[in-house]
Amino acid sequence: MLKEFIPARRPEDKALNAERKALEKKLGEDQLKITAAKLPVMVVFEGWGAAGKGTVLGKVIKDIDPRFFKVKSFGPPTKEERAYPFIRRYLLDIPENGKFTFFVPYMMEEVTGDVIKGHLDEDGYQQTIDEINTMERSLHDNGTLLIKFFFHLGRKEQKRRIQKLQENADTKWRVDAEDLNENKHYHDYEKLYDRYLSETNQSYAPWVIVDAGTDKKWTELQVLRFITQSIDTALQNKGLAVPILQNRFPLVREPKLAEVSLDGKSLEDGEYRKALKKYQKKLGDLQNRIHRRGIPVIIGYEGWDAAGKGGNIKRVTEALDPRGYTVHPIAAPEPREKNRHYLWRFIEKIPQKGDIAIFDRTWYGRVMVERLEGFCSVNDWQRAYNEINEFEYDLNRWGAVIIKFWLQIDSDTQLKRFKAREADPDKQWKITDEDWRNRDKWSQYEQAVNEMIEKTSTAFAPWHILESCDKNYARVKALKIITEALEHRLAESAH
Amino acid sequence: MLKEFIPARRPEDKALNAERKALEKKLGEDQLKITAAKLPVMVVFEGWGAAGKGTVLGKVIKDIDPRFFKVKSFGPPTKEERAYPFIRRYLLDIPENGKFTFFVPYMMEEVTGDVIKGHLDEDGYQQTIDEINTMERSLHDNGTLLIKFFFHLGRKEQKRRIQKLQENADTKWRVDAEDLNENKHYHDYEKLYDRYLSETNQSYAPWVIVDAGTDKKWTELQVLRFITQSIDTALQNKGLAVPILQNRFPLVREPKLAEVSLDGKSLEDGEYRKALKKYQKKLGDLQNRIHRRGIPVIIGYEGWDAAGKGGNIKRVTEALDPRGYTVHPIAAPEPREKNRHYLWRFIEKIPQKGDIAIFDRTWYGRVMVERLEGFCSVNDWQRAYNEINEFEYDLNRWGAVIIKFWLQIDSDTQLKRFKAREADPDKQWKITDEDWRNRDKWSQYEQAVNEMIEKTSTAFAPWHILESCDKNYARVKALKIITEALEHRLAESAH
Repeated sequence: MLKEFIPARRPEDKALNAERKALEKKLGEDQLKITAAKLPVMVVFEGWGAAGKGTVLGKVIKDIDPRFFKVKSFGPPTKEERAYPFIRRYLLDIPENGKFTFFVPYMMEEVTGDVIKGHLDEDGYQQTIDEINTMERSLHDNGTLLIKFFFHLGRKEQKRRIQKLQENADTKWRVDAEDLNENKHYHDYEKLYDRYLSETNQSYAPWVIVDAGTDKKWTELQVLRFITQSIDTALQNKGLAVPILQNRFPLVREPKLAEVSLDGKSLEDGEYRKALKKYQKKLGDLQNRIHRRGIPVIIGYEGWDAAGKGGNIKRVTEALDPRGYTVHPIAAPEPREKNRHYLWRFIEKIPQKGDIAIFDRTWYGRVMVERLEGFCSVNDWQRAYNEINEFEYDLNRWGAVIIKFWLQIDSDTQLKRFKAREADPDKQWKITDEDWRNRDKWSQYEQAVNEMIEKTSTAFAPWHILESCDKNYARVKALKIITEALEHRLAESAH
Repeated sequence: MLKEFIPARRPEDKALNAERKALEKKLGEDQLKITAAKLPVMVVFEGWGAAGKGTVLGKVIKDIDPRFFKVKSFGPPTKEERAYPFIRRYLLDIPENGKFTFFVPYMMEEVTGDVIKGHLDEDGYQQTIDEINTMERSLHDNGTLLIKFFFHLGRKEQKRRIQKLQENADTKWRVDAEDLNENKHYHDYEKLYDRYLSETNQSYAPWVIVDAGTDKKWTELQVLRFITQSIDTALQNKGLAVPILQNRFPLVREPKLAEVSLDGKSLEDGEYRKALKKYQKKLGDLQNRIHRRGIPVIIGYEGWDAAGKGGNIKRVTEALDPRGYTVHPIAAPEPREKNRHYLWRFIEKIPQKGDIAIFDRTWYGRVMVERLEGFCSVNDWQRAYNEINEFEYDLNRWGAVIIKFWLQIDSDTQLKRFKAREADPDKQWKITDEDWRNRDKWSQYEQAVNEMIEKTSTAFAPWHILESCDKNYARVKALKIITEALEHRLAESAH
């Protein structure tokens, strides 16, 4: 892309200044429209050292109300950050609806830097590119405007600027070893940047190459032109339904809920206690091993109200060293969560390598409660199956074991348990009007769950149905599935 | 992608056969729905040699009415095909609305083959990938369903199959040098395929990796599953508006038509003849040079009715060797053209390297007559600006010089010329009721033309306005622009 870049014609000074003024004003007005339309806007500045990213950013933001934008900068990841998926720290600061985040620089610097330092081989590089593209598409499809700039300048001009900065005692500090290295090995870097740009140049998040080698005002004008154009386009697109993607993941066929037999799925107490002890012991041992090997584990619980999620989770955590796991109870999203991509609050909660995260209700709320209560559009939840499969696929490729449980009971069992809860003063808090309302929607939920399991039971993150009329049975089955999955992964990764 | 591929679980024989039968039947029914919905379907089969692509294809098509599908196979490109953009021959057989085309194999074999043979360097490879992705997205956005399969099998299994084929005199011919080579250098090929797959694995045209190493029936079932799923998804998406993309191309600002001064833009006959002679001579010489250097040239003419396109074109072709140019008069599309992507009939007409194609009216009909007459949806023409920029960008990168003319006259001049035509028995055929109807829509056309020029005058394919109240002036200006553009390109490519 860089070699074929054809810059636009720079207008004469007078025309340039007039257009700049006009577009700065427009950007200020655009900000109000963005807020009204609840459009989140990500603006990414990458490019050559000494290309003037910071200076231009300073000019561009001066007409935006500071309450509506954030500037986010990234250095090399810390050791702690490296224990999470590469992409996580870049996602933590995605803008809320109606606001801007300016990223200076963004992921390119880390990715290409890792290639140069030999931290990322070809496979790892490709996987990273895939992950970036998938996530940017998901952000776009869920309503985010992404604008990505690459500030381009030639080798000679870069050298001239570096020398000028070095000559002045006040600006000397702005030149670092990386800038010098870039200029020395310009063509190697150019190749690397070019590949990165072309592989992340997606229709939903295209790169705009900006001529940053002429003068600052011209660079600024180009940036203003593309930002304001893109905002117009995004506002025009706002509210359009996004096409559902074809499934490309290998799926595992599971029975429909109505076909799941609950009869005979029970364990009497003696057997239960024996099995519990055995599997809990095993799980404790396995936790040590996965911790040592840095394998992250994600366990998601979904199921009917009163199916016994809490008790089931408790039997799992009893076996675990508390320093190595976290249980995340998932309730309705808070405003800061509701104003971002629906997976954002879960991305925050991804475990570190070697840790276990247990989710009491999960991101599948998108295709259950949010679907049935109309908290998102039909198009939103229909798209979510694939978005979730992609999210889990990338977690799996990162190394995570993903286990998903559906706790199944029949409607009569639920009724019995609801009534028992109401009768027990210690358990009355566990039963609310909402539970009764959800119960009225049993058949709608059943349909949604069947569709969810059909479309998201992938070979890498299958659903497991836990027959839970007898809680003993369900608890032992959960422990069995977890221990088997961990053993399987440990055996695999030993090769 | 190949290394991380996790196959789905193969069902037991009985379940497998039942599902296969059911899905074959569904595919037959789907064909009727596809025809009714006018959905074009492209199915691509690529993969390892001896993976059974042909056999599985034979099974899959047997339940589709043969009038509704085509099978298209590709060998290495001929010398003539190499004189066109790489992608052209793959596009000539895209399906009509309501029909299938099965491509076995498709572009992967040529691209990876060229990399292996050293015909494609890193830059060329990236450019090719970009072109493929851009075109597949444009096909998708304009309503095509793309399903791409990669038939995957391990090295040992491939070897076993090759040996089995070789042992039998009847099947020996099916093993070629390429298959043997692939097996010998399996891991090198795997790397190459993997990169290709991951870089062309787009949300609008994803790759499905199929486990082709177990048995044919299972491979067939996987293919049937993904085809039928994808058709369901595509039918569900049918008719959704597609988001407009952000502009990422450097634009050249041009005046609005109303700001173009026509006064004084004239040449008296003596001057005209002198200039004509000079530029025609120059153009003739330049044609020889661009022909020798293999530079393709595309000249598009648009303009008001009676602005003088025909006469202008004639002054250009007078200077040219007829073996090196073609004039394409563009009328309303024929049914076979109307049933495909709107750029298809122009892709057919791209000149060979070294040739000149002159279009009397162009693909810009999409954003003028098709827009104003409602021949396409609002979303269709709004999307077209970017699609056309991408189309021209790829032609430019391939090496084409692109020159676009708008012949500008005022409404009074048009009226005068219409009346003169009606009065002249030799020219009456040139004026029709449609011309008068178009004239009534002058201000709507003016708005459309202004928008077109604003959004598609790119740095690599700018619009040139030819003031044509005086035809002498317009003809000389056209020749001047063409000769300058060719000289410029020749000078550039001499470096």
